[in-house]
Amino acid sequence: MSYNTFGHMFRVTTWGESHGPAIGCVVDGCPPRLSLSEADIQPWLDRRRPGQSKFTTQRQEADRVEILSGVFEGQTTGTPISLVIHNTDQRSRDYGDIAGRYRPGHADVTYDRKYGIRDYRGGGRSSARETAMRVAAGAVARKVLGQGIRIRAALVQVGAHKVERARWDWDLVSRNPLFCPDPVALVQWEDLLADVRKAGSSIGAVIEVVAEGVPPGLGAPIYGKLDSDLAMALMSINAVKGVEIGEGFAAAALTGEENADPMRMRDDMLEFASNHAGGILGGISTGQPVVARFAVKPTSSILTPVPSVTRSGENVDVMTKGRHDPCVGIRAVPVGEAMMACVLADHLLRHRGQVGS
Amino acid sequence: MSYNTFGHMFRVTTWGESHGPAIGCVVDGCPPRLSLSEADIQPWLDRRRPGQSKFTTQRQEADRVEILSGVFEGQTTGTPISLVIHNTDQRSRDYGDIAGRYRPGHADVTYDRKYGIRDYRGGGRSSARETAMRVAAGAVARKVLGQGIRIRAALVQVGAHKVERARWDWDLVSRNPLFCPDPVALVQWEDLLADVRKAGSSIGAVIEVVAEGVPPGLGAPIYGKLDSDLAMALMSINAVKGVEIGEGFAAAALTGEENADPMRMRDDMLEFASNHAGGILGGISTGQPVVARFAVKPTSSILTPVPSVTRSGENVDVMTKGRHDPCVGIRAVPVGEAMMACVLADHLLRHRGQVGS
Amino acid sequence: MSYNTFGHMFRVTTWGESHGPAIGCVVDGCPPRLSLSEADIQPWLDRRRPGQSKFTTQRQEADRVEILSGVFEGQTTGTPISLVIHNTDQRSRDYGDIAGRYRPGHADVTYDRKYGIRDYRGGGRSSARETAMRVAAGAVARKVLGQGIRIRAALVQVGAHKVERARWDWDLVSRNPLFCPDPVALVQWEDLLADVRKAGSSIGAVIEVVAEGVPPGLGAPIYGKLDSDLAMALMSINAVKGVEIGEGFAAAALTGEENADPMRMRDDMLEFASNHAGGILGGISTGQPVVARFAVKPTSSILTPVPSVTRSGENVDVMTKGRHDPCVGIRAVPVGEAMMACVLADHLLRHRGQVGS
Amino acid sequence: MSYNTFGHMFRVTTWGESHGPAIGCVVDGCPPRLSLSEADIQPWLDRRRPGQSKFTTQRQEADRVEILSGVFEGQTTGTPISLVIHNTDQRSRDYGDIAGRYRPGHADVTYDRKYGIRDYRGGGRSSARETAMRVAAGAVARKVLGQGIRIRAALVQVGAHKVERARWDWDLVSRNPLFCPDPVALVQWEDLLADVRKAGSSIGAVIEVVAEGVPPGLGAPIYGKLDSDLAMALMSINAVKGVEIGEGFAAAALTGEENADPMRMRDDMLEFASNHAGGILGGISTGQPVVARFAVKPTSSILTPVPSVTRSGENVDVMTKGRHDPCVGIRAVPVGEAMMACVLADHLLRHRGQVGS
Repeated sequence: MSYNTFGHMFRVTTWGESHGPAIGCVVDGCPPRLSLSEADIQPWLDRRRPGQSKFTTQRQEADRVEILSGVFEGQTTGTPISLVIHNTDQRSRDYGDIAGRYRPGHADVTYDRKYGIRDYRGGGRSSARETAMRVAAGAVARKVLGQGIRIRAALVQVGAHKVERARWDWDLVSRNPLFCPDPVALVQWEDLLADVRKAGSSIGAVIEVVAEGVPPGLGAPIYGKLDSDLAMALMSINAVKGVEIGEGFAAAALTGEENADPMRMRDDMLEFASNHAGGILGGISTGQPVVARFAVKPTSSILTPVPSVTRSGENVDVMTKGRHDPCVGIRAVPVGEAMMACVLADHLLRHRGQVGS
Repeated sequence: MSYNTFGHMFRVTTWGESHGPAIGCVVDGCPPRLSLSEADIQPWLDRRRPGQSKFTTQRQEADRVEILSGVFEGQTTGTPISLVIHNTDQRSRDYGDIAGRYRPGHADVTYDRKYGIRDYRGGGRSSARETAMRVAAGAVARKVLGQGIRIRAALVQVGAHKVERARWDWDLVSRNPLFCPDPVALVQWEDLLADVRKAGSSIGAVIEVVAEGVPPGLGAPIYGKLDSDLAMALMSINAVKGVEIGEGFAAAALTGEENADPMRMRDDMLEFASNHAGGILGGISTGQPVVARFAVKPTSSILTPVPSVTRSGENVDVMTKGRHDPCVGIRAVPVGEAMMACVLADHLLRHRGQVGS
Repeated sequence: MSYNTFGHMFRVTTWGESHGPAIGCVVDGCPPRLSLSEADIQPWLDRRRPGQSKFTTQRQEADRVEILSGVFEGQTTGTPISLVIHNTDQRSRDYGDIAGRYRPGHADVTYDRKYGIRDYRGGGRSSARETAMRVAAGAVARKVLGQGIRIRAALVQVGAHKVERARWDWDLVSRNPLFCPDPVALVQWEDLLADVRKAGSSIGAVIEVVAEGVPPGLGAPIYGKLDSDLAMALMSINAVKGVEIGEGFAAAALTGEENADPMRMRDDMLEFASNHAGGILGGISTGQPVVARFAVKPTSSILTPVPSVTRSGENVDVMTKGRHDPCVGIRAVPVGEAMMACVLADHLLRHRGQVGS
Repeated sequence: MSYNTFGHMFRVTTWGESHGPAIGCVVDGCPPRLSLSEADIQPWLDRRRPGQSKFTTQRQEADRVEILSGVFEGQTTGTPISLVIHNTDQRSRDYGDIAGRYRPGHADVTYDRKYGIRDYRGGGRSSARETAMRVAAGAVARKVLGQGIRIRAALVQVGAHKVERARWDWDLVSRNPLFCPDPVALVQWEDLLADVRKAGSSIGAVIEVVAEGVPPGLGAPIYGKLDSDLAMALMSINAVKGVEIGEGFAAAALTGEENADPMRMRDDMLEFASNHAGGILGGISTGQPVVARFAVKPTSSILTPVPSVTRSGENVDVMTKGRHDPCVGIRAVPVGEAMMACVLADHLLRHRGQVGS
């Protein structure tokens, strides 16, 4: 019922505003005796950190995570793990321009209509800054999942340009700031993004997250399905407008024959000949890689003025100056991985609870 | 934490297997003093009922709903509403062919791997039969929402054929068994589906659900977002592989300028010039129509044999004989409406709880 | 968040009114492959059933339980278990006397003030009839706990008369309708209750529930403590006004020396020399018997007129005629056992989820 | 499902260990636009702070609370409120004596048996230090409840000595460090506690919490009862072994006539002639004061050696040296108030959600 918590047995509560003193999260339900230190979390945060290329916002955030509880002598204790990042880039500035006017496409107007108040500084609670804590929690979730489960994500579409799957190279993903798995697309995207940035515009993107080594049996019918929990988790990321599993929307255009994943025994192990299902049948993992994709809209912060209104009900045209991301989808890549990790960790514990081992 | 419950304040727990004695649900948290009788629920069930055209399974289910609790003298009392439908079409038959072998693309294999046991009769718990209770709960949810909020859905794509939005006619939707809003597409689809059915094949589809009259302010950051709850609810429907809000995946190909929804005051009311956002910003409703779409895969029950395995680990080819749906997406239309209604009812009560009014 | 659900992993949702067509519950999260049939549940219900002695209400309820889902070929499947009892003793009668007036000490007035409506027939939702479903769910919980955990309860006080612990005899408990463990107290109570019944009065009681064989480690700090979950579960039983663990309120009068439970190793096993703690330290089970007690008030249904008011705000004196329990605490004995079983089953699964094994 | 969260709509998650860098909590679901600053919280913390008299531990904790999120320009925003207290009294010391041996009556042994690891410094997570965050959250809850609801608590029993209700003086409570409402008992208790302290012993206590101005209608059948939520909340406080509402355990010895609370209309308002029910009928508030009591055991930290075992399974006698509370019940008084405030705030929002206003 909590508005700022997700997960059931592996449970994450985040708090904090973009320009408040700190942001943080509490990870509850983590199994005991897992080795954990800041050094296990920081590298994942560094991947998400802005300002690492010209394609993301130039805002500088050290994003130095601290563990305040739940770890003793380098091991988790089973009690809640409190993680905090102090906001160091709180420039004292004049917010007059956004305090009273609604940026189109932002949550400014809906927060105000819901609560009658909003912390407008840097987007407050609705800022993508919150996703840092998802990444931190995801690092803990990876510890729960162990070495056998590998979670990776890549950008698979920027604007109308998709990657070519025949050229997919996971190694490339970790070597370019766009998390692109296709060397040809990478060049295209760099050009495209340079143009978008120069124009003060923005562009959408699609991210694919793949989890390998997921044991069969995770997820539960009917309202604890692995895919519906993934859908919720990924849709909750800022600016996400769509989520799909396996073939996703493309499945609508297929026939049953085309979409079938044949099964065969091989060395006493069940094998699937294809993975249209994206690793999930009936809400439960099959043992194949779990494959999810999500679409991120172009950020609404652009240099072109857009008709809007003020808090007091006057028409105004709003242009969002200052640091901005030409493609917020880029930084969503590590966030997508983190959400996958958290959902899987939760389901691993839930499955063990109900069924044992 | 419950596996078979969804919602928080308006909360639905479903139970029952396809070929058990009955299926049912418990609706908890419903406000008191709403008028409610079976007559308010039955019409929605009738829309979902199979056997109404040659395009859905010919299985005959009376689907007669009974209210067992929570209603007194025609009004809800605030206590749990128990709804039940007795299964009348429980043919005594031989399940030998599916008891021991896994139908490809079905949950047979994952249920077995998870639980080590499954009720294989008619798909057991994984049968689409469960969605009848979603529709029943959705009828109660509509009572909570009241007359001011109108929820409608339509089929917008069958196979590769999409409707033409310029021809959209809501009245047509209620007059054809395919819930098609486009008279031209309707003819195409009927031909297509006749072919699919004749071939013993199946085909996917996309459904669009629209809720008008939703007040601004429903939904809550960060993990109680209206869109992430919708994503979970729609993804939990059988055979759904993708969910999107507003522009959805198409937003990836747009620029910030194209995707912006300009705002203007008109007669002291805030108006949006477009609705790319699908009525949700920052996880909170804007007051515009809430628009969601979901993709349904082609049903895996086809007459073409597909390689599979038996429970005891032998290779086998499986063909699913008997009654089947050439396009399960058709019957998902009223189910999608019901899930939208339940999610909105839940958020209406949650919003009132936290913010009042 | 559900109002009619308790438990987290082993989760029970009850529904139904005293004089509606049926009452029932849904048990969700039960592990698969436990043998279960109506015959496992019915004996526990029979123990709770009224009309078995002159000391409980003479209302005749067959209380025949049916399993509607979640069990296949005699085994649980891991999907929700729906249990129902049809109400057979729905006399058609005139409720005019209680429809418009509030019985003092009953929930009549609070239900009406909260909801503005109430099902007044037989107490509606507030009737002790609901506890039948707790007992049914408890029977399932016992299956989860297995043979190693034994849960028993006894009446330890009726009115001011307490049992003498030196005379405690568990075998006697199952052989008398008062669940009394002390042969001397039994005679006293029979006399007392005969007088109370003759006078049309009622009397309070205290029940003790003991769970043996509970492994150490169940329960979790800080808000998932075993004792706080027990307190909630027992306090939720109708007419209960107090709950205590181990020494309970008597601990207030003790010194630290008197209240200490010394520990010693014996044959490589940890042993406690006493059990003032009632088997729980820091919210976690110690491995000793878990001991809880709860106080049940005298039922408010008495033949002496008590000043009250009508629904429309007039003063009136109310006397509750008809079938009534001189000591509702008696029938609370099997209910207390059931709640202990449900709480322990839930914690067993939760512990296994987080910690494994 | 979270282990360290309580409440549903008004929801509190606490974290932190006694000797870690900080303790804290996240309050989620708080209504927006309530005025809130550290100055609203600090006075309540000051009341709980140890070292204020010779009757509580001499440990010095500044307990300076900071608000890290959820408040903007002095008002709550509806987003999560993060509160933190940095631990300033983290003496660097040798824990060798408690690291390997279990203090009898403490959670040392159960934490170790459950998790296989524990932060032994100062009791770690099981320390009463965590209750500071309950008090902080309670201060926020009071804001939700508003001026109309007044929550006060007092110590009503120390050892075997109870207060005399005829001498009850609420003003006295705030003027003595024992929160005693009876001037005669105060003198007795001071003598008693001086002796207990001198002897290196400890003693139990009972606290009574009273909430006045609670509107009728809070709480919900059957598993969201106001009294069962109170029972859980109060039982979750460290060292609590019993909870009762209204007459509580004394109700067992009463007849229905004695326990009845007669009702009468007076100036168009419903009035009760007595309050044996403690303000709750059928789990729902009546409008009368809500009265709860809870028993606190004598702290297990005493100077008398008690038989115990070491972590590695050797017998040992353990005496707890250093700062300790002769009567931990004293400091539980403000904690009890805070839990009452949190439970009522939660139910106020839940009631508004379901029923409106």
